[in-house]
This record gives sequence, C-alpha cells and structure tokens, in this order.
Amino acid sequence: MEKHAFGPGREFDLIRHFLRQAPAHDSIIVGPGDDAAVLRGGVVISTDAAVEGIHFRREWLEPAEIGYRAAACALSDLAALAAEPWALLVSLVLPASDYGKFAVELMAGVQRAASLVHAGLAGGDTAATSGPLVIDIVVVGQTDRPVLRSGARPGDHVFVTGELGGAAAAVAAWTRGERPGQEARRRYALPEPRIAQAHWLARHVELHALIDLSDGIASDAAHLAAASGCALIIRADQLPVGPEATLQLALSGGDDYELCFTADVQEVGAVALEFFEHFGSPLTDVGEVTSGHGLQIVDAGGKRLHARGWDHFGAKP
Amino acid sequence: MEKHAFGPGREFDLIRHFLRQAPAHDSIIVGPGDDAAVLRGGVVISTDAAVEGIHFRREWLEPAEIGYRAAACALSDLAALAAEPWALLVSLVLPASDYGKFAVELMAGVQRAASLVHAGLAGGDTAATSGPLVIDIVVVGQTDRPVLRSGARPGDHVFVTGELGGAAAAVAAWTRGERPGQEARRRYALPEPRIAQAHWLARHVELHALIDLSDGIASDAAHLAAASGCALIIRADQLPVGPEATLQLALSGGDDYELCFTADVQEVGAVALEFFEHFGSPLTDVGEVTSGHGLQIVDAGGKRLHARGWDHFGAKP
Repeated sequence: MEKHAFGPGREFDLIRHFLRQAPAHDSIIVGPGDDAAVLRGGVVISTDAAVEGIHFRREWLEPAEIGYRAAACALSDLAALAAEPWALLVSLVLPASDYGKFAVELMAGVQRAASLVHAGLAGGDTAATSGPLVIDIVVVGQTDRPVLRSGARPGDHVFVTGELGGAAAAVAAWTRGERPGQEARRRYALPEPRIAQAHWLARHVELHALIDLSDGIASDAAHLAAASGCALIIRADQLPVGPEATLQLALSGGDDYELCFTADVQEVGAVALEFFEHFGSPLTDVGEVTSGHGLQIVDAGGKRLHARGWDHFGAKP
Repeated sequence: MEKHAFGPGREFDLIRHFLRQAPAHDSIIVGPGDDAAVLRGGVVISTDAAVEGIHFRREWLEPAEIGYRAAACALSDLAALAAEPWALLVSLVLPASDYGKFAVELMAGVQRAASLVHAGLAGGDTAATSGPLVIDIVVVGQTDRPVLRSGARPGDHVFVTGELGGAAAAVAAWTRGERPGQEARRRYALPEPRIAQAHWLARHVELHALIDLSDGIASDAAHLAAASGCALIIRADQLPVGPEATLQLALSGGDDYELCFTADVQEVGAVALEFFEHFGSPLTDVGEVTSGHGLQIVDAGGKRLHARGWDHFGAKP
C-alpha cells in the first residue's frame, strides 16, 4: 500500500511531510494514509478533532448537537473501513465558561452518537483553554477484513450511499445569514455514521475500496484514486443531490458523511434495491475506475470539469 | 473496580458527572477511571491533550520540545499500566502561523518521544484554529497483565521512582520571570516516560497498584487511595526532592511523570539497589497503605498536614 496516499491540498502537504519520517512498529498493519489505522488483532483506531470556528460554529448548533456531531464524524472513520465499533475516548478542551451545563449537554450528545452505533465510552481527558472549544474524539473498533482506500481497480464502478450536499447547503445558508431548511440542518447537525451500511455492503458485495465523504467527493475521491494508483471518473450529472443542495455543494460538501466505494457494477446492481428497502436511502453509480491517475469530474456530455475549479467550494465555515 | 475512582478536584467532578452515564461495551475491560482504558485483547489506550497556555507556554520550550513533551506525557499513561507501547496518533490543532517549520519541528519532537520507547506513528489529524495550539496524543499499547490504580491493600508500602518536583521548579522559576536551572528545565521539557522502569518492576515485584505522577503525588496518590478503597499515608520528609525543588513542589509537581506504586516492602527492598544500578535513579519508600480512605500527608513527627493546604501549589502555568 502506498503510504502517502493523499490527494492535493495544503493540509495533506503537511501530513505528507510528517509521514515521510513516521516511525514504524510491527503492531501497525495499516499506518497513516487511510481513514483509520489498523493494528494487531484487527484493531482499528482513528482520531478526529472538531474545532469551534473551523468545523462548526457555536451559534449553529445546540451543545448536544456539537457533541453528537463530533462523535458521529469520528465514528464515520470506522464505517470507512467497515469496522465494528468498540469504544470512544473524548478529549474535551473547554473554555472556562463551558464548564457545567454546556459540557454536560455536549457529552450527552457524544454518548447519544456512541449509543446509536453500540459503542462504549472508554475514557478521555479534559483541559481548559483560553481559546475556542476543541473536541478530539478517538474511535476504536475491530475488523478482520478492513476495506481500505487502496483497492480500487480499473473496471470498477464508483458508488455513493445516500444523498450529497445537504449538510453543505445548511452551512451555505448560515454563511449567507439565512436559516437553513429543516432537512439540510439535520444533515449537518446530526449526521449518521454509516456503520450499518458499510457492514451490510461488506456482507453483500466484494468491496474493493471504501472511503467516507468527509471533505466532499471532489477531494475524497482524489484520495481514493491516489491510494489505489488508478484514475477515477466522477459523472457530475449522476451525483445524488441532497435536500436544498446544488451540484457544486454535492461535489464539495463532505459534511454528509456518506460512503463512497468501488466494486463490480453487476454485483452492486443486484443488491441496490434491497439496500434501498433496508436503509431507505439509495446506492448511486456515480462513475468509473480506469487505469491512469488522479480524479476527473465530467459533465453529462463527458466534458471534463477542471477539478481545481472546485477548490473554492471546499472552504469550511 | 470502582468506576468513578477519582480524588477531589473540579476537573474530576466534571469527569465523574460524565461517567455516571457512560455507555458500556463488552470490549471494554477497564473503562474510565484509570490512567488508560484496557480493551479486548489487552489493548491499552489513552488520550492526553496538551494546550498552549495551560499545559505549557510557547516561550518556555523549543517547538520540538513541545511535541516531545506532549507525546512523552501521553506515553506515561502506558507506563502507568505497565503496558508495552505500540503506536501514537496525533491530533494537531494549529494556529495558521504554525503551519510549516514550526509544525514540522514539533512533529519531529513527537517522533523522538515515540522512538525513545519504540512506538510507531499510526495516524492522526490536523486542523486549524484561531486560538492556542492544542496537541492531543493518543497512545495505544498492550499488556496481558495491566497494573491498575485499584489494587493497593493495607500493609503495602508506597514507592516512587526517581525524584519529584524538578519540573515544577522549572515552572516556578519561569513564573517568577527567572530562568530555571538546566536540570530542572530538562525535567520539565524532556520528561522520560517510565516505560522500561514499569516493565522492570512488573517483572521483579508483584505490583499491587500503579499510577504515574502527572498531577503531583498529593493529587495522584488520592486517586490511588480512592480507586483502591484504602487510605494512603505519605511521609513528606521521605519524598525524594528533585533538583532545585522544594518539598512543596515535590508534593504538588506532577510534571516529572515519575511512577508511584504500592507493593510489599520486603519485595521492593530486595531489588531497590538493582533498580538503581540499572536505571541510575532511586526507588524510594514514601509511605504506607492502611484501611480507611483518603490521603494523609504527614510530617516527620507523624503530624498530619492538611491535604487541602496543598491545593494552591497545584496551580498549572
């Protein structure tokens, strides 16, 4: 597996630099570069920081939603390897004014997300800060058959679960000073980690590569292509555009935490209806894997849209 | 094991509240309340946040020392259960001005701490912030025989490794606007997680209870007493006072990350010289375990010093 399997981006440049000299250990089966690490015994672990003013704004969410969302986003990394959740650990870096009721409600939200996917709470840390609230969530799970980013092969089709861009539509509305619609707001505030969907798919289909859409498919599919050493073609007109969303938001809006995977088109076709009946949300064929490298986003006529053109939609709150 | 095994303190009140409703999972063998959680397969995991302005000040340390110290403090939680280190994950919450050289040097420090105890780097996260630098370090290790806080029994003696208060002496000097001495500064900037010492002790002695001194023995020994359902008596005049330190700093200064354990006095006595020859630092008998509850700190005449009196020394930078 390619160790430095990230697509373009300034954050990823920094991570690439760190990882060049990352010390190895024989307990590390899959190290940095996937959605989570895989350790001896199939233990899957990931850490995910949510920072006030960067990943969320306090005025957008209830305290319990802040906690729920941070935990759900972290748990999505277990879905992205089709791992079974075990436990969370929570590092809570709190402004002094958040001690008390706010912190208690926030942790109730964390616990709700954990309970939703039958994970326990194993520990954590609390610290004071003079700055913004930071919630760093560690998720631990297990799988004997992790589905990595690196398994896509030419001939695969690319699929996504659910609908894309709804959460980004809520952020866009808030950013314009408007109130988002109820459904878009729910997509942002209460994303559901697609643990059950990932397990169901792993049982019914040979999943070649899997990633969760945390940064938007225009960014995450590029990671998948880089990790797999293939090219991915995403057909913009086929993307399932979510409530109140636009195509641009569906391409760049990662906050829905849906899954993106590659597999044989016939295998997925044979179970897509059953998936819809089971989960009430669609599986959509959004593109193909070919030899080559990088991500191409094409329009209905097959004309290539410049991937860099999507960068400015990727701006976070 | 008592689940809410913390001594007094405002931070611990908040944690106690969170844990009252913490969801369980059958993968969690030892949950919140010890230095680290123990999961299925003897996997040991802990998370430790270092916040600029709270746990360290930027002007006190080189960037590499900030990273080293954050990682070493987190790794100390593996020593506190006598676990073998596997890997670290690093969540780096960075002010924009720290992108680039500062972040690279900081991560080099993290990697130095990992390499010192033969741990790998398994992953992490980076995020921007408008506030202070936050480094949250996740440590993962393994042991089939975790030594918990809860095993102290009446008749045990209480021991500490090394010397106490040196790191706190450095903080005290900086706080007074002075430069600390070289050795005190080193104790603060470059603490060594006592992994090898913990393993050596676990092989040579039946360790009943173990904790690392992260908050100062006046606070950490109270956790040990609460977790074990016993009373601990610490003899202030027997504490090994570190370079440039005072008795008060040795009682309240946790930043040395030495170990505190309880065991049979004869067993420890039989190996203390060998420990000193092997590690070049002492094992010191600092008190006893009795029936009852809580921590008593007594002077040379056996007169009780009011434990609450030590609170004001516990103030962090």
